[in-house]
Amino acid sequence: MRTPHFIYDLKLLEMTLSELNTQIKQTKFKVHYAVKANSNKELLKMIEKFGLGADCVSGQEIRWALDAGFGATEIVYAGVGKTDEEITFAIKNKIGVIHCEGLQELIAINEIAILLGESVDVALRLNPNIDALTHAKITTGLSENKFGFSEMELEELILTKDKYKNINITGLHFHIGSQINEMKVFETLCNKIKDYLIYFEDNIGQLKYLNVGGGLGIDYYNPDENKIPDFKSYFDVFKSKLKEQDINVHFELGRSIVGQCGYLKTKVLYIKSTQTKQFAIVDAGMTELLRPALYNAYHKIDFEGISFIENQKQYDIVGPICESSDCLGVNVLLPELRRGDTLIIKSCGAYAESMRLNYNGRKKIESTYI
Amino acid sequence: MRTPHFIYDLKLLEMTLSELNTQIKQTKFKVHYAVKANSNKELLKMIEKFGLGADCVSGQEIRWALDAGFGATEIVYAGVGKTDEEITFAIKNKIGVIHCEGLQELIAINEIAILLGESVDVALRLNPNIDALTHAKITTGLSENKFGFSEMELEELILTKDKYKNINITGLHFHIGSQINEMKVFETLCNKIKDYLIYFEDNIGQLKYLNVGGGLGIDYYNPDENKIPDFKSYFDVFKSKLKEQDINVHFELGRSIVGQCGYLKTKVLYIKSTQTKQFAIVDAGMTELLRPALYNAYHKIDFEGISFIENQKQYDIVGPICESSDCLGVNVLLPELRRGDTLIIKSCGAYAESMRLNYNGRKKIESTYI
Repeated sequence: MRTPHFIYDLKLLEMTLSELNTQIKQTKFKVHYAVKANSNKELLKMIEKFGLGADCVSGQEIRWALDAGFGATEIVYAGVGKTDEEITFAIKNKIGVIHCEGLQELIAINEIAILLGESVDVALRLNPNIDALTHAKITTGLSENKFGFSEMELEELILTKDKYKNINITGLHFHIGSQINEMKVFETLCNKIKDYLIYFEDNIGQLKYLNVGGGLGIDYYNPDENKIPDFKSYFDVFKSKLKEQDINVHFELGRSIVGQCGYLKTKVLYIKSTQTKQFAIVDAGMTELLRPALYNAYHKIDFEGISFIENQKQYDIVGPICESSDCLGVNVLLPELRRGDTLIIKSCGAYAESMRLNYNGRKKIESTYI
Repeated sequence: MRTPHFIYDLKLLEMTLSELNTQIKQTKFKVHYAVKANSNKELLKMIEKFGLGADCVSGQEIRWALDAGFGATEIVYAGVGKTDEEITFAIKNKIGVIHCEGLQELIAINEIAILLGESVDVALRLNPNIDALTHAKITTGLSENKFGFSEMELEELILTKDKYKNINITGLHFHIGSQINEMKVFETLCNKIKDYLIYFEDNIGQLKYLNVGGGLGIDYYNPDENKIPDFKSYFDVFKSKLKEQDINVHFELGRSIVGQCGYLKTKVLYIKSTQTKQFAIVDAGMTELLRPALYNAYHKIDFEGISFIENQKQYDIVGPICESSDCLGVNVLLPELRRGDTLIIKSCGAYAESMRLNYNGRKKIESTYI
């Protein structure tokens, strides 16, 4: 097998989707898969088969979802910077709902809907000002972030709501960040949501559904022990906190669905010793896995083959890219490595292939499905 | 013109290259352009016409340089993770010299050269352990970085140098980082280099050339006032500090050549007001310009059109990508912006187009040359 190489464990994805569906059985919950996590067509096709919808953030992602077999009404379109072309494309394709992130966007959607002679279902994304307690770069629900209607905009919308003739405001949407493992963050979100629901029904009208976003984290440190996220605890929060609400609740999960089913296989090109460090230079880099460079993210790195704990050494696992930030793992304990050995970088199902770069003339790498 | 869009000012590039050539006239200096900064073919073709060589970091970059017209002997190949395929490709194409970053790589180059029946010129990249006084992610010459021969490896090489029959060690290579504006850093480098030259000639043999790397910064804060970097001061350091050395000196400059000749044109999609901030959501993002998200890098952002200083407001300029790090400028003073206004992001000639991503389904954008 050529390296570097993405490997997708479709059996694990199947088990993950089964567990997800078990936890939402007999509820009014519906999960949309966040295509941005990984738009690989094989993954999309399997996710569609399990009955999930698709959460898209661009016209291109809507195209990919349609190509993979998602029904148009199963697609929601979110994103803070929708262009007129993308909005037009979404409306023409009669996708389920547009998640609108601000007042000017709402005006644009209405104008385009009038031009097309269509009536459009829109959910308002609100910014609940909640700290997701994760990394600053992946926190999205603070008032200092660019996402969603601010309180000022919401007040203005209420005053002008009768002007948007071709829009039906049918839902509310929240998304406070990603890689969240503290269930109390979701409890806080639910408490805020309940206030917003009352406010919405008092000021705008009947709500058809509520989208609580995603954000459920995965265990990057123990991927083998925790292959499938704790969907039960996650959904239980919403079952319990929103039990008085007789409403359809939508979720948009990405990482928690695909994160653990992908691995990045890479070959050791060279070992280099300095007075302070041992480097293993591998043939995968930030071009295939940007998360460590961008967020200082941790990924578990395993040796492929038999290894004995007593002979382990510490390595910095670095890629071939001409950047010091191209470091995939610091002080990783591994058996003594040799040129040609293979390493497996775990938890690369989400935000690896979808964030790849061509920097340094790097080409798109192959994927294998097991 | 569609937005987002890269605009390249080829006249400025021409002036920059002229000034560069003026400063190295009647010296034994030779500049190789660092293709990783921007591999755009129009730029490569013009740079080649001005007589520069090409500094490549992958087999693909060598291919691009050859396609753009660079002679094979004008190409050097650096990079910490060269694969066997890439080394083979470089040797078969008889490129000028391979910059070798470690002992295991030297062994691999020798083995491949034997297989191919070729003799290969190699320069050793040494790690001089100098702090470039810039951003940690772009400092490359500290002993904790992955680049170059460590002292331990160099000592081992000296003991075993007669084993590498198909390799001629003809040069030494240093590169301590990028975006360096403190000339004293280069002075420190020269002082270290002089020690290494003596050490090299005592222990390895006659040196044919010295490559001092690149790293000269550009003025991201005042791009209009400082369109062309201060090549004079930069080269004067090396003229003065290395004047006793009767040796060919190679430079590998990227950003300082192309950085200021590229702009990113982007359209304001929406304005959003919160209690604490005004956001201008634009149609370019981290997918076209990764530097702010990756390095917290600053780029000057100008309004396209007539603007009056007295009516300026503060905006966060944010892109359409679903990441909080997709912020191109914080608290930028601009005239009151409206949906549809055009902004120009300056200094995007280097590490913008070459680092672009397809994330969120974003497509490659067009370029225009003026």
